[in-house]
Amino acid sequence: MDLQAYLKERSQLVDKALEQYMPTLPAPAKVLEEAMRYSLFAGGKRLRPILALAAAEAVGGSVEAALPASCALEYIHTYSLIHDDLPAMVDDDWRRGRPTNHKAYGEAQAILAGDALLTQAFVILTASNYPATVNPEQIRRAIYEIAVAAGPEGMVGGQSADIREQGNAAAGPEVLTYIHTHKTGALLRSAVRVGAILGGATRDQLASLTSYGEKLGLAFQISDDILDATGDPMLLGKPVKHDAKKQKLTYVTLCGLEKARREAANLAKQAEDSLQSFSAAADPLRALARFTVERDH
Amino acid sequence: MDLQAYLKERSQLVDKALEQYMPTLPAPAKVLEEAMRYSLFAGGKRLRPILALAAAEAVGGSVEAALPASCALEYIHTYSLIHDDLPAMVDDDWRRGRPTNHKAYGEAQAILAGDALLTQAFVILTASNYPATVNPEQIRRAIYEIAVAAGPEGMVGGQSADIREQGNAAAGPEVLTYIHTHKTGALLRSAVRVGAILGGATRDQLASLTSYGEKLGLAFQISDDILDATGDPMLLGKPVKHDAKKQKLTYVTLCGLEKARREAANLAKQAEDSLQSFSAAADPLRALARFTVERDH
Repeated sequence: MDLQAYLKERSQLVDKALEQYMPTLPAPAKVLEEAMRYSLFAGGKRLRPILALAAAEAVGGSVEAALPASCALEYIHTYSLIHDDLPAMVDDDWRRGRPTNHKAYGEAQAILAGDALLTQAFVILTASNYPATVNPEQIRRAIYEIAVAAGPEGMVGGQSADIREQGNAAAGPEVLTYIHTHKTGALLRSAVRVGAILGGATRDQLASLTSYGEKLGLAFQISDDILDATGDPMLLGKPVKHDAKKQKLTYVTLCGLEKARREAANLAKQAEDSLQSFSAAADPLRALARFTVERDH
Repeated sequence: MDLQAYLKERSQLVDKALEQYMPTLPAPAKVLEEAMRYSLFAGGKRLRPILALAAAEAVGGSVEAALPASCALEYIHTYSLIHDDLPAMVDDDWRRGRPTNHKAYGEAQAILAGDALLTQAFVILTASNYPATVNPEQIRRAIYEIAVAAGPEGMVGGQSADIREQGNAAAGPEVLTYIHTHKTGALLRSAVRVGAILGGATRDQLASLTSYGEKLGLAFQISDDILDATGDPMLLGKPVKHDAKKQKLTYVTLCGLEKARREAANLAKQAEDSLQSFSAAADPLRALARFTVERDH
């Protein structure tokens, strides 16, 4: 399959839906709307939505069944980047080739834009916008999956640990694994699971796709660490070698570049292997696993 | 009815449920759990949960039907206080007689504790913890109500406008009304509506209770402004005359103390009047309307 064409078509589909779910705010809150839009439409890869849609199709479901949830995942991902970039957190000035949200709108509006995107995700998930194939119990399960993955037992827990361990050279591999599986891994895993649930996956299909999502999530994080150490700042849209400067605990700083590369490739292969029982309907997921470790930004 | 005894019994019930919904986090994220608990169990009045439970009972529903949603409302209210107190926002050092969350845990963990509490609210709302009287459609509607009320078209929109208008002496009554109805009003209104929805309200009951919630929300905000201007800092647990110092737009700074007092009393009376068609099952709501404007903290 032509992955580049597929990614382009899917990200256009997702962008259109993301736009439809953006509220239009009155004058006193217009700056909040602008700040939300600034980060939501900053040229993200839309990996999480695309994974959710692909997982729904892999189990025979429709794109429409997973579209609201896929947008909710991108709203949540965007909020997490805005808050992560804040001066009190990682303190980044650049993201996707543009000033970060707080550089453009100030810290207060950036914090609120993040809060607004996170909350709007749950508006999207509960608006009456599902096809008749999706029943209320599937919707409840999908929202629960996303909330657990994004919350204190998932992404926010990982961010808290990541901040706490900054500059701690004594932190070991267990802490790094906790951070990776929670900060980035949990939401990627939930993207695949939620797509599968809304697409009507059987119990066995859901188990295979969960394994796929876990391997892919780890591979993605390791390849992010590699890109920070070796990538092209023009392609990445942000400065590199940032992790080393901040003494940030990463797979590369802990294990070295060569071991990181082997491990990422190995995990991408394991992700693909999880899909052995699936038909060609899972080909996009197979290609996405390879893309995760072969991308240059 | 003995309102003080009622409030005590209900806040104990709510506190117990809030505790049950708190996740236990592993060592790398323990500080996040502590920061969440610090603000969640800081002696809040639990007004929003108590309103939701009372609204459910006013329409003949059970406390159990509204208990998860009532806890979710308190998690969301607590997150909003943590973020509102941040240096980049209102920059408060004291809340409920204790240092604010960022004073105790640092800004990064305070931002994350807020994010975690907000997200956990949606875990609570979608965990399988409803009695059989509540159907999935009621649950979906309740979550939608809360997300809209807390999000950019509700509370966060109000906070954004409030921050933006700080120190703007030229801001008029329309902006103040937007801020009041959104920053505090929307979540209070949704507390009453969500309790009613989960309690099985008819369309007419829901309309009456919505009117009650709107009047009560405005009365509450005006009485908050009055307490800031005239209250006892020992009872309030925070310094007073804060709004005037910050040139904050409030009902008191805009209309004066006397007009504010009359308006709050008037709104509380209108809230009570909205309940004329209800039986004695709505007596707690009636007493809560009076309490809103007669409280000293």
